[in-house]
Amino acid sequence: MTDVQDRKRRAGGRAGNKARAGSAVIDQMPWRIPVNPDRPTEPLDADGVQRIHRGAMTILSDIGIEFLNPEAAEILRRAGCIVTGTNVRMDESFVMEMLTHAPDSFAISPRNVARRVIMGGKHMLFGNVSSPPNAWDLERGKRSGDMATFREFTKLTQYFNCIHLNGGYPVEPVDVHASVRHLDCLHDQLTLTDKVVHAYSLGAERVEDVMEMVRIAAGLSPSEFDASPRMFTNINSVSPLKHDYPMLDGAMRMARRGQPVIVTPFTLAGAMAPVTMAGAVALSLAEALAAIALLQYIAPGCPVAIGTFTSNVDMKSGAPAFGTPEYMRATQMTGQLVRFYGLPLRSSGVCAANVPDGQSMWETSNSLWAAVQSRTNLVYHAAGWLEGGLIASPEKFVMDCEVLQMIQRYFEEATFATSPDDIALDAIREVGAGGHYFGCQHTQDRYQTAFYAPFASDWRNYEAWQADGSHWTPERAHRIYKQILAEFEPPDMDHTAREELTRFVARRKQEGGAPTDF
Amino acid sequence: MTDVQDRKRRAGGRAGNKARAGSAVIDQMPWRIPVNPDRPTEPLDADGVQRIHRGAMTILSDIGIEFLNPEAAEILRRAGCIVTGTNVRMDESFVMEMLTHAPDSFAISPRNVARRVIMGGKHMLFGNVSSPPNAWDLERGKRSGDMATFREFTKLTQYFNCIHLNGGYPVEPVDVHASVRHLDCLHDQLTLTDKVVHAYSLGAERVEDVMEMVRIAAGLSPSEFDASPRMFTNINSVSPLKHDYPMLDGAMRMARRGQPVIVTPFTLAGAMAPVTMAGAVALSLAEALAAIALLQYIAPGCPVAIGTFTSNVDMKSGAPAFGTPEYMRATQMTGQLVRFYGLPLRSSGVCAANVPDGQSMWETSNSLWAAVQSRTNLVYHAAGWLEGGLIASPEKFVMDCEVLQMIQRYFEEATFATSPDDIALDAIREVGAGGHYFGCQHTQDRYQTAFYAPFASDWRNYEAWQADGSHWTPERAHRIYKQILAEFEPPDMDHTAREELTRFVARRKQEGGAPTDF
Repeated sequence: MTDVQDRKRRAGGRAGNKARAGSAVIDQMPWRIPVNPDRPTEPLDADGVQRIHRGAMTILSDIGIEFLNPEAAEILRRAGCIVTGTNVRMDESFVMEMLTHAPDSFAISPRNVARRVIMGGKHMLFGNVSSPPNAWDLERGKRSGDMATFREFTKLTQYFNCIHLNGGYPVEPVDVHASVRHLDCLHDQLTLTDKVVHAYSLGAERVEDVMEMVRIAAGLSPSEFDASPRMFTNINSVSPLKHDYPMLDGAMRMARRGQPVIVTPFTLAGAMAPVTMAGAVALSLAEALAAIALLQYIAPGCPVAIGTFTSNVDMKSGAPAFGTPEYMRATQMTGQLVRFYGLPLRSSGVCAANVPDGQSMWETSNSLWAAVQSRTNLVYHAAGWLEGGLIASPEKFVMDCEVLQMIQRYFEEATFATSPDDIALDAIREVGAGGHYFGCQHTQDRYQTAFYAPFASDWRNYEAWQADGSHWTPERAHRIYKQILAEFEPPDMDHTAREELTRFVARRKQEGGAPTDF
Repeated sequence: MTDVQDRKRRAGGRAGNKARAGSAVIDQMPWRIPVNPDRPTEPLDADGVQRIHRGAMTILSDIGIEFLNPEAAEILRRAGCIVTGTNVRMDESFVMEMLTHAPDSFAISPRNVARRVIMGGKHMLFGNVSSPPNAWDLERGKRSGDMATFREFTKLTQYFNCIHLNGGYPVEPVDVHASVRHLDCLHDQLTLTDKVVHAYSLGAERVEDVMEMVRIAAGLSPSEFDASPRMFTNINSVSPLKHDYPMLDGAMRMARRGQPVIVTPFTLAGAMAPVTMAGAVALSLAEALAAIALLQYIAPGCPVAIGTFTSNVDMKSGAPAFGTPEYMRATQMTGQLVRFYGLPLRSSGVCAANVPDGQSMWETSNSLWAAVQSRTNLVYHAAGWLEGGLIASPEKFVMDCEVLQMIQRYFEEATFATSPDDIALDAIREVGAGGHYFGCQHTQDRYQTAFYAPFASDWRNYEAWQADGSHWTPERAHRIYKQILAEFEPPDMDHTAREELTRFVARRKQEGGAPTDF
């Protein structure tokens, strides 16, 4: 019902769009938190789940994980783990006990609470591409990321209703000094968007600064901020078998203030992980669970999630591959295990392609459908990613959003509803043999909302498409992103909060920002 | 095991490829019949299945189907159906009784029995694009189909091991007169390929000629030909609610000789079918079941299958859309019902895009993953389709084959196996923290066959890709298809059979071929 109302409001046309700032360029789907109704695809039987679980537990208890953060190692020693230098071994009962504290679902509320997201259950969120050092577009080709480009992607992140949150920086603005980059970036993310933001766990100052900025932007007291999730961080282990200092430091700071931590080992099978996919998954889970056990011991009940970033390399060149059959199965297997552990799951929208061409879309489609099949709760890098994460592309961003919207529509019950109105026997009787359904009342009552309406796809025949300039998909996406940026209007923001945020940034810049010796 | 052996043989390199004619251009996967291990995605619960079933049965019993073939109508009248002019109504008990005769699976053996295919169960077959009137390639753009282009696509069909059979004509050779087109086309399909072929049900002479040609090419006696499936036809109803004369005529001729008939209603929701997907599916099933009941009454136990071609139109323009969310759900729902009826399922690899760009691949990927999720047994149009079936493209053919190979690999148990060797605890222990897996024995023993090896994807980084000419996917596919054609060698064929085939074609041409007044 909500859906029907939303679609009707949308069908209300451009005049009705004013409430959604900047959305006049294309006729996009309204903001919503998609709910995945499908039973997951599960390649493992119950024994297979147990074998990977046992593998992960054996890694944790017999081989151990390196915690390159003395505070973390000391905490785990006190918790009863066996600590030998930086090596920490923990047994199954400790890990499983810690997991009982972790929530299977949690909400994160940004400064605009209407943009609250739910992480867990059957909910599925999409975040923008995060952390590429470079940008590419049809006009300018490949070039280093800069602050102007960062802002372009941040505006796209805000514009598209199917993008639910800011991941990391959509492109690294290398023209801003690393000591103050987080201040400028978060200032822009918090003012150009009203969606959830992320802090990189790269040193105490950065994490603390970003938490403070999120608190200020939302007009919260420190205790209000601590009371519930307002942002998140994503940390990566240094596979195989290591957690580094700053990532653990940031994760612990976030957990102590009740802010969500996603732990995502980057395990490329054949490079940082076993060449066999089940082994790569077991290693990845062991690394993730080690950090999550630590966080649950420090702050029982703090919101956490497991991320999967298990793919394979090209064994000829060593290059990372994405959206492969092996990637899909690893994602599905991780989904099964993460449900076994009762945690939310993050995966990604990824490809190895260098430009937004056919390969980029079959690889990204493979990774997105694997996300659906694994019941992923948060798809990181869901829009704009190219070259194995080294390039952010605005054309790819627009193209990916078309696919994300199709996934949202695919989830809607209307596409598989079987009420008498859906079976439509009266219409079938009325139209009869050889008739046409377009004119019948059953169609007229529904045609505006019956089907997914694309914004980047061109469904015209060849001749109409040719007469209009023969624009291939990236060219159409280029035009769309340019128009979105030209007409972009930032979301409303409380004036006082905004001024305080600006003052905070200025003060912290004066103080020198964060150290860059990490 | 067979898989491992096959992959090893393949890894034996180009010298070992001689046995597989023409396969030296790319390092492709060996011929195999893929088996889909996944549980299907089922949007309908048991009640939903029953509601669509009841809808289809009500259409058949209360509204009826037009059979524009007097012989078919008369047979159904004798069978106890209610026939009023061309309108035939049949009740559920008759339909369900006829379905008990139909096999849930059958094999089709072409002249080279090593190319035998299985239709049904968890088997999944891929056929080439069928019936576009036009071709498009990067060099020549869009143009009418001709015999030279027909031969190019037929060679691609033979070359790729992931293409298991010839569908209809991969492009219509409009430069050959319609009266003799079937003779020239089948002659070339039967000599340039050794895979299963298809007959269009477009008049008695065409069907009879093609059955005779298939019999001759395989060196079979008429009774040997009749004894088991050697080829197939695919008929479409004229939706809504009609079966035309020639399609039914061809289907009955095929069924009487034990040759498989796929019945594929072309039901575009909002045009030839209700705007609601469950209604479009119910209509489609009613039309398919009507023809199948007829065929089972005529020849109990004859091999049949249901095809789904339910998609939606663009409600703004009326243009057909493919690979949409609605298309995916319709395919999955049809899969559930077709399993309920105990029949094999055909679906398609389809898109609305006009060129082999990003849109073409997300739409085709959507339709191919829907095929996997619905447990489709035969994917028609699996390679080479553009512009809603109005264009066949060799670049798209090559690109699609990359995706088809990935699906084949995705089905392999190796991608989700959980033996101790797969969990790889010894390797994880050996490599330890911070090490690299490339050098360890566990990797060395497996690296040649561990991962899918692509032929059209470019996994190099941007700079290496740029230094090599910055070729986007269709450009790489263009080069590959040209090289395949340049090096193509037709498969072996018995000399006597070939001569007899050529004589048959010459004689039938002298006789004037088939009438063209259909």
